[in-house]
Amino acid sequence: MVILIQCNDRVGLVADIASVLAKAGYNIVAMREHVDVEEKRFFVRVMVENISNIQNIEKDLMKVLPDDAIVRVNPLPDKKIVVLVTREYHCLSDILIRNHFKTLGADVQCVIGNHDDLKDITEQFGIPFYLVSHESKSREKFEDEILDIVTRYNPDFLILAKFMRILSPGFISSFKMRIINIHHSFLPAFIGANPYKQAYKRGVKIIGATAHFITNDLDEGPIITQKIITVNHSLLLPDLIKAGRENETAALARAMQLVFDDRVLVYSNKTVVFE
Amino acid sequence: MVILIQCNDRVGLVADIASVLAKAGYNIVAMREHVDVEEKRFFVRVMVENISNIQNIEKDLMKVLPDDAIVRVNPLPDKKIVVLVTREYHCLSDILIRNHFKTLGADVQCVIGNHDDLKDITEQFGIPFYLVSHESKSREKFEDEILDIVTRYNPDFLILAKFMRILSPGFISSFKMRIINIHHSFLPAFIGANPYKQAYKRGVKIIGATAHFITNDLDEGPIITQKIITVNHSLLLPDLIKAGRENETAALARAMQLVFDDRVLVYSNKTVVFE
Amino acid sequence: MVILIQCNDRVGLVADIASVLAKAGYNIVAMREHVDVEEKRFFVRVMVENISNIQNIEKDLMKVLPDDAIVRVNPLPDKKIVVLVTREYHCLSDILIRNHFKTLGADVQCVIGNHDDLKDITEQFGIPFYLVSHESKSREKFEDEILDIVTRYNPDFLILAKFMRILSPGFISSFKMRIINIHHSFLPAFIGANPYKQAYKRGVKIIGATAHFITNDLDEGPIITQKIITVNHSLLLPDLIKAGRENETAALARAMQLVFDDRVLVYSNKTVVFE
Amino acid sequence: MVILIQCNDRVGLVADIASVLAKAGYNIVAMREHVDVEEKRFFVRVMVENISNIQNIEKDLMKVLPDDAIVRVNPLPDKKIVVLVTREYHCLSDILIRNHFKTLGADVQCVIGNHDDLKDITEQFGIPFYLVSHESKSREKFEDEILDIVTRYNPDFLILAKFMRILSPGFISSFKMRIINIHHSFLPAFIGANPYKQAYKRGVKIIGATAHFITNDLDEGPIITQKIITVNHSLLLPDLIKAGRENETAALARAMQLVFDDRVLVYSNKTVVFE
Repeated sequence: MVILIQCNDRVGLVADIASVLAKAGYNIVAMREHVDVEEKRFFVRVMVENISNIQNIEKDLMKVLPDDAIVRVNPLPDKKIVVLVTREYHCLSDILIRNHFKTLGADVQCVIGNHDDLKDITEQFGIPFYLVSHESKSREKFEDEILDIVTRYNPDFLILAKFMRILSPGFISSFKMRIINIHHSFLPAFIGANPYKQAYKRGVKIIGATAHFITNDLDEGPIITQKIITVNHSLLLPDLIKAGRENETAALARAMQLVFDDRVLVYSNKTVVFE
Repeated sequence: MVILIQCNDRVGLVADIASVLAKAGYNIVAMREHVDVEEKRFFVRVMVENISNIQNIEKDLMKVLPDDAIVRVNPLPDKKIVVLVTREYHCLSDILIRNHFKTLGADVQCVIGNHDDLKDITEQFGIPFYLVSHESKSREKFEDEILDIVTRYNPDFLILAKFMRILSPGFISSFKMRIINIHHSFLPAFIGANPYKQAYKRGVKIIGATAHFITNDLDEGPIITQKIITVNHSLLLPDLIKAGRENETAALARAMQLVFDDRVLVYSNKTVVFE
Repeated sequence: MVILIQCNDRVGLVADIASVLAKAGYNIVAMREHVDVEEKRFFVRVMVENISNIQNIEKDLMKVLPDDAIVRVNPLPDKKIVVLVTREYHCLSDILIRNHFKTLGADVQCVIGNHDDLKDITEQFGIPFYLVSHESKSREKFEDEILDIVTRYNPDFLILAKFMRILSPGFISSFKMRIINIHHSFLPAFIGANPYKQAYKRGVKIIGATAHFITNDLDEGPIITQKIITVNHSLLLPDLIKAGRENETAALARAMQLVFDDRVLVYSNKTVVFE
Repeated sequence: MVILIQCNDRVGLVADIASVLAKAGYNIVAMREHVDVEEKRFFVRVMVENISNIQNIEKDLMKVLPDDAIVRVNPLPDKKIVVLVTREYHCLSDILIRNHFKTLGADVQCVIGNHDDLKDITEQFGIPFYLVSHESKSREKFEDEILDIVTRYNPDFLILAKFMRILSPGFISSFKMRIINIHHSFLPAFIGANPYKQAYKRGVKIIGATAHFITNDLDEGPIITQKIITVNHSLLLPDLIKAGRENETAALARAMQLVFDDRVLVYSNKTVVFE
C-alpha cells in the first residue's frame, strides 16, 4: 500500500506520521520524504506492509497533520483511465498492449478519437472506441460530447495520447491535475505547433518529449518526465518525426508508470517525483 | 590526413574526388558523405593514408570540383586556440588538463579573462594569462584590447569557456565560424540570461548544454553538439548549477574534439557533424 | 536504393565503385566507408537516387571489385521475416504493432511458438501462428517441424523474440547471419541462464540487453546493438526483469531497424554498423 | 547534517528515529528509507536542519535502535582522502582540479604513486606526492611503505585512481569498505586484465566503467556506480581506451560524490545508494 501526503512543513511531521503507522502495526518498507525549503512544503511517499484497516489510517493521519494536508491512501491495484487520440498510433498502441497484458498499472475504459483512424486497433483489443468529430461544431459542443462519454466511465485520469485539439479551461478544470499529455518537444523549447519542424530548422542535435499535466496555459503544466534522443544532420524532417515518436511513446509510458505507481505529487506548477 | 569538402551537389562528385585520391596513391580508410537533398549541397570527410604530396592534392581536387567548393586538407597534428573566460573554472580547467597531457587536439596559446580569478590556475600550467577588464571602458575598446592579444597568437579558433560578455558583430566577423561557445542550456530552450533559474522555475526534469559557433544572433549560431543530464525536485538552484557545470564541461570538450578532429562542416546556420 | 559492399582493401576501391555509379547516372546521397586497417578489409554503404537499371549495377560493380567481394543491392522496400517466440509478449507485441502500421521495415510472415501463450495476440493482428511444442520429442524433430514451416515462407531473417530454446548448429547453418536474437544481458556479462538473477545478486547499477546474430557458440555471435538502463537497490528481482523487458524490446527493435535498413555488415564475428 | 543508519528491520523504526530527531528539534528536510525485504535489513538516510547537539543524537538514536545498528552522524563538511595512482593522469587530474576548487567534497591529503609520472601535476597543485616503487621488493614491503605514509594522514578513504597493483587481503582489511577503485569495464563483463582489448575483440557496442569498494576478491567488491558510453566499429583499440578514460573519470567522480555526500550504505556485497 502506498500513502502520499503533502502539507506545510513543521518539525516532527515524519515522527507523527511514522508513529501513526507503527501503532497500526504497519511496516514501512520504503519511504521518501522531501521538503521544499523555500516554500516550506512537506512531501512524503510511504510504502507499507502488514496492512489491516485502511479506512482508519487516513483518519488517524489527518488527526496529526496540519489542516491543509492532502492525504492519498492507495490500496487499489488499478486506476481507471480514458484515452483521447487523434490519428497517430504509436502512443495508443503501446497503451493497448500494456493494458492487454496487465502491465499498465491502470485499466483502459475506452478510447475517444476525433478521427476514426484508430478505431480498428482499439476494438481489436476489445476496448470501446468512440468517434467524436470536432468538425462543424463549436468547441463547447465537442467537449460536451467527450465529457458525456468520459463521465460514464468515471476515470481517475484522462490520457492525451497525441490528441491534437486544445481543451478549454472549463473542460480542464473538471479534471484538475488528472489529464496527462505528451508534448512532442523538450519543453519549454519549441512550444506550440510543429516542434519537429522548428527543431529541424534550428539544426538541434537532441530532440525531446515531455509528459506533463494539462493546465489552462498551453504546454505550461507541471512536467512529469522528459526523454530525449540524439539526432544528426542525416535525418530529414520525416525521419525526425519518426524517431521522435519512439521517444514520445517512451516518455508517456514512463509518466503513466510514475503516476499510476503513486510516485508523483503536484504543487506550484511543479512535480515532486519519487522515482 | 583528413580532407573536408563542401560544394553544390552533382552526379559523379564522389567518383571524381576518389579518382584524384586514387591517382595520387592515397588509400581511403574512412569516408563519410552526405547530401542535403533539399538544398542540393554536398559534404564529404575523407581520411586517407599513404600520403606523399599534400600541396598538389588540394589543387588537383579543385580542378574536378565546382567553383564554389570549399576544400580543407588538414595534415597538421594540432590547431592553435585562444581561450576566453570570466570567472568559472570548470571548462577552462578541463581544457588546461587536456592541453597539458596533449590530448586536446589543439595547443592553447593563451587565456584571456575579464576577471583575474583564473589567472593562477592558468599560469600554473605555464600558459600566459591576460587580464582585460571590461569595466570603465567601451565595448569597442574592450574588444580591441582582446583583439590585440589574440592577433599576436594567430589562433585557428577562439573558445569561449564561460566567457560571460556579448561580442559585437564586428569582432565576430573577424573569426567567422571560428568562435566556439558553450551555452548553459538546451538551446533553443532558455535563451538568454539565467537559464538554470528559468529551468528551476519551470520544474524541468532534464537540463542541457549546447556548444555552438557564435554568430551575430545571440545563442542562435550553428549547434555543434548538445548534452543533457536528468535532474529532479531535490535539486535547488545551486545544485542545478553545479550539476549543469559537469554537463557544460562535457559538451564543450566534445565539441572541441569534433571540430579539432575535422568532423564539422557548417552551412545554412546548421552543422554537418561526421561523428 | 542501398548498396552494401565488403571485400579486401586496395587503393582506388571508392573511385572504382563511385565511377560505376556515376556512369550509370546514379546520384550518391549518402555514403559511409570503413576500412579495418588491421584486417585490411573494406566496407561501404552507398545510398543512391536516380535509379534506372538495378541488374546491371551489381554486375558492373563486380567487374571492378576483387573476386572476394560481397555485393548486396537492395531495391526492395521490405524484407520478409518469421518470428520465433516462447511465452514473453513484449518483443513480439512491439513487432506486431510496427508490422501492422507498416513501420517495421519488414513483413512478418508468421509467428512460431513452442508454447501457445502468444497465439491470440498474433492472430488478432491477422498473422498466422504455429504451435511447435518441444516437449516429448528430440531437438532434431523439433527443429525439423520449425524448418518445415519456415521454408514455406522463405524469409530473409528469423527473429528470436525471446525464444528460449537453444538451436542446433545444423539449424543455424541454414540461416547463416540471418537469425537475430535478443539476449537479456549486457553481453559478455552474464552469459547463459538467468542473467537478471545474476545481475541482482551482483548488485549492478546498470542492466543491459544485446541484440546479436546467432552463431554456433551460444551468446557469442556478432553483436548488432546493445542498450542499457540504470537500476538501483530498490528493484527486487521481478522489478529488474520488468524493467529489463522494456530494454530488450528497444534493443531488438533498434537491431531490426538497422538490419532491415541495410546498415549492418558482418565479418570476423563482429559487425560494421553504419548508423 | 546527514544521518545514515542500517540495522535489522522491525516495525516502528522510522517512528522511533524520527521521534528522537523531533524531540531534539531537528527538522527533517530529506529522508530516504529502504528495507531489503528478503534480508529484513533496514537502511535510512536523513538530512536535518536546526542542529544543536550532535553528540547526544548518536547516543539517543542508539537507545531506540537494535544492538546491531550502525549509525553514522556526519556533521563534517569534508572527508580526508589519500589517492593512489600509477601512470594514467585522467582520474587524478580530475580529482586535483575538484580538490583545488573545493568541489570534491573531500580534502586530498597526498598522492602516492608506484611510478613518478604524476609527481609534477600533483605537486603543481601543492599536494605532496610520494613515490613508492613496487620494483625489487616484496608486496609486503611495498604495502608497508604505502601504509606508513597513509597512516600519517589518517584518511577516511583511499581512492585507487587507476592504481594498477593488486592489494593484499591484509592491506584491504585495514580499510574495510574505505577503498574505492575504478575498474575499466562494465563489471562483471571483462573481469581481470585488458578489458578494453577484450571488448575490442568481442565487438561490443557499449563500454563501461565500474566504481566499487575493494574487497579481497578482485573486481568483486560492492558496486557504487557504473557508467557507459556507446562505441562502434570505427574505434581501434587505442580509440576505445581513450574514449574509456573519459568514462572512467566520470564514474569515479560520481562514486566519490555519492560516498562523500553520505549516500552509500554497504551490506551483503551490495550497496544501497540514495541518489
